[in-house]
Amino acid sequence: MVKLDEKNKEEYTRSVINALKAENIKAFRNLFLELHPTDQVELFVSFDQSQRQRVYECLSPAEFADIFQGLELEQQKEYITELDQTFAIAMFNSMSADDLADFLGELPDIMAETYLNNMGQKDAQDIKNLLAYPDETAGAIMTTEFIALATKDKVSHVLQRLKEQAPDAETIYYLYVVNEQRKLVGVVSLRDLIVARDDQLVEEIMSTRVVSVSVLDDQEEVADVIKKYDFLAVPVISKQGKLVGIVTVDDVMDVVEEEVTEDIGEISAARGAVDLQLSSFDAAKKRAPWILMLAFLGLISAGVIGQFEETLEAVARLAVFIPLIMGSAGNTGTQTLAVVVRSLALGTLDRVGVGKLLKRELGTGVMLGLICSLVLVLTVPVIYDGDLVLGVIVASSLLAALSVATVIGAIIPLIINKLRIDPAVASGPFITTLNDIIALLIYFSIATALLQYL
Amino acid sequence: MVKLDEKNKEEYTRSVINALKAENIKAFRNLFLELHPTDQVELFVSFDQSQRQRVYECLSPAEFADIFQGLELEQQKEYITELDQTFAIAMFNSMSADDLADFLGELPDIMAETYLNNMGQKDAQDIKNLLAYPDETAGAIMTTEFIALATKDKVSHVLQRLKEQAPDAETIYYLYVVNEQRKLVGVVSLRDLIVARDDQLVEEIMSTRVVSVSVLDDQEEVADVIKKYDFLAVPVISKQGKLVGIVTVDDVMDVVEEEVTEDIGEISAARGAVDLQLSSFDAAKKRAPWILMLAFLGLISAGVIGQFEETLEAVARLAVFIPLIMGSAGNTGTQTLAVVVRSLALGTLDRVGVGKLLKRELGTGVMLGLICSLVLVLTVPVIYDGDLVLGVIVASSLLAALSVATVIGAIIPLIINKLRIDPAVASGPFITTLNDIIALLIYFSIATALLQYL
Repeated sequence: MVKLDEKNKEEYTRSVINALKAENIKAFRNLFLELHPTDQVELFVSFDQSQRQRVYECLSPAEFADIFQGLELEQQKEYITELDQTFAIAMFNSMSADDLADFLGELPDIMAETYLNNMGQKDAQDIKNLLAYPDETAGAIMTTEFIALATKDKVSHVLQRLKEQAPDAETIYYLYVVNEQRKLVGVVSLRDLIVARDDQLVEEIMSTRVVSVSVLDDQEEVADVIKKYDFLAVPVISKQGKLVGIVTVDDVMDVVEEEVTEDIGEISAARGAVDLQLSSFDAAKKRAPWILMLAFLGLISAGVIGQFEETLEAVARLAVFIPLIMGSAGNTGTQTLAVVVRSLALGTLDRVGVGKLLKRELGTGVMLGLICSLVLVLTVPVIYDGDLVLGVIVASSLLAALSVATVIGAIIPLIINKLRIDPAVASGPFITTLNDIIALLIYFSIATALLQYL
Repeated sequence: MVKLDEKNKEEYTRSVINALKAENIKAFRNLFLELHPTDQVELFVSFDQSQRQRVYECLSPAEFADIFQGLELEQQKEYITELDQTFAIAMFNSMSADDLADFLGELPDIMAETYLNNMGQKDAQDIKNLLAYPDETAGAIMTTEFIALATKDKVSHVLQRLKEQAPDAETIYYLYVVNEQRKLVGVVSLRDLIVARDDQLVEEIMSTRVVSVSVLDDQEEVADVIKKYDFLAVPVISKQGKLVGIVTVDDVMDVVEEEVTEDIGEISAARGAVDLQLSSFDAAKKRAPWILMLAFLGLISAGVIGQFEETLEAVARLAVFIPLIMGSAGNTGTQTLAVVVRSLALGTLDRVGVGKLLKRELGTGVMLGLICSLVLVLTVPVIYDGDLVLGVIVASSLLAALSVATVIGAIIPLIINKLRIDPAVASGPFITTLNDIIALLIYFSIATALLQYL
């Protein structure tokens, strides 16, 4: 396998492309197939259409399946139109069931049907089963290409069987043991198998109670199990306890990335729009609803200030501190949100408990408020030639606003999470805007109360 | 192995604790050691001191090593004081080198020295080598317990050797092939080995060009390689090309979690403070510098508004829209930041290019600005009884401010990343505050220019 690092990448790429241009099939195959599939994909997507056409002619459907599986869904949808149907079907038969189901699930139903009807019946049924599971569940991300053993299998026989089945299975490092009803009864790692004596039976070396997940478990729970136990794979069982698939650690890595993207999208009110591949127009289309919704919330802030127009007309200088008060409350709340989002994702909140979180955050908010107000009660009069009262108003508003901001920053995402509402509503900007409104109310109320001293 | 799910967890836990209380060593060992190490850890940390003392008496140092390795660093530091030195040293000898190095690296140098001097010389040297690598590099997270083969080894001999070495190695699923100078020359997966004929030589079945990382590579690069190629482990080579260790996928999962926590901390200016375990005081201490720094930046906003005090005194109503203008610019910039942070982490930015990113974001900003200004030029006069000019001021400010905000949101983190300055400076709140200042300048400049029409 060739490793493409910065040094040899360009040179190697050039020789592959030259072989392709010269229609030297043998040289191209030698060079190209020597690459790791991941690097094959990287090179393939850099080809233009006529080069791709030659690739389809040079490679077998099974060889091209490795590339196709590594493409993004959008790219798969584009290139599939360049393949003839027989080639495509043959390629599908070589793809792993979970990858194929992911792809077919994105196609219009009629197209997916056509392909499935032309595939081998057993494979087609596997795919249909996978497609039936709801998105983001264990069933949707699992693969059905696992190796199942019987309790009475002999170690030497299992090793012999692995020699034949290894190339097809997604992983051979964990082997799951089932009884006659295909219920999961044990697990044997390849490590156990290697260490065992040839004449031992599977039941003698297997672990009998296996950590498993259910087909309808959320993909995030699957990821948590694999992370917690440092597994390479976890078995998936049906409601009836039958072994129906496995989820491997590399799929879980993708899940983790996906969930993190969602979390960051939520914190920044850019959910579904953090993908760099989108056009300006598509990105604007996805982001505009958030910005507009937040702008309307901003109109509430405007309304709050509008209520105090008289105060403002009396002392225009009060407007000067609006950004400071708003900003500090917003920033403090965002910090708390980050704590909550992260502890929900890592599961630390379950250990620590909500009560302790709220107490911790309120305490932190009060202390942050005290520090900020102390600094500003000293700073403001220096900047605004001895205006002590203004300093007191700004400082006391900050103390109150920051204490509230941490609590808001903690409670909103927790409620949202509890009610299982779309958590995008708990995004950073929403909490910030809410904290803005509260902070402005506090500030102008205090200022109005002390107006006579200003 | 017992799986502890919600149903049987309580009951099982009770029987373990009862056995411990009854000082029924045999029953306790049977029940406790049947658990997965991860669950042993979970149970162990729920014990009180006298229960822990009994655990130390019931388990061998090697058995307790499994638990100790699964503890958090803080817990390790607490419990180590409860162990007598001989037990501790024996336990260290059973721990994997990378976990032990992580722990000893946290102890005061003198304590670490004492332990190391009492350990076997070879193990101690391994640990010292690991401790010498800078934090967050491949060297710091790798383990030295890997299996290395020679090119001329026979498959049957390797399998025989695995039977003996399997229990000690971190993974036996990838076996690395080295020459006489211990230079990495190939890799064989256990899968390749199982499929091979017994009389084949390692050099016949190995892949000759191996993807590897260098000891000083950043841990994030290591994670990227493992994610990209779906590896279970990656070999680490020294500057001289010698194989010195491996990093396994479960360690990489921890790295990913760590990096995400850092990213989220950056977006929310709560770096180093998203840990829920901190006390209010410690959290406030870590968060206060950010909030204070941002408050001082807020004073700049105050200064900007101060410059326009005359305008404000003439039309106090202008203050009403400060939160709306500031909020919209801030939110738009935060969205862009999320896009950039995520594409830096996933490596998509390298593929797409900075120029295209900036063009995309500017385009998105202009479109978002157009949408918002269109909505507000219609809304503001409705709310403020036909004040068309106010509507035009707010709308045109939004158009300009939002276009700038996306560019600022993209450029700042990129510059920071390029200059390799501490990226916390590029956090969401900093960008938001910067965007606030620019947006206010735009708004009041336009308002002052149009003052005669208000």
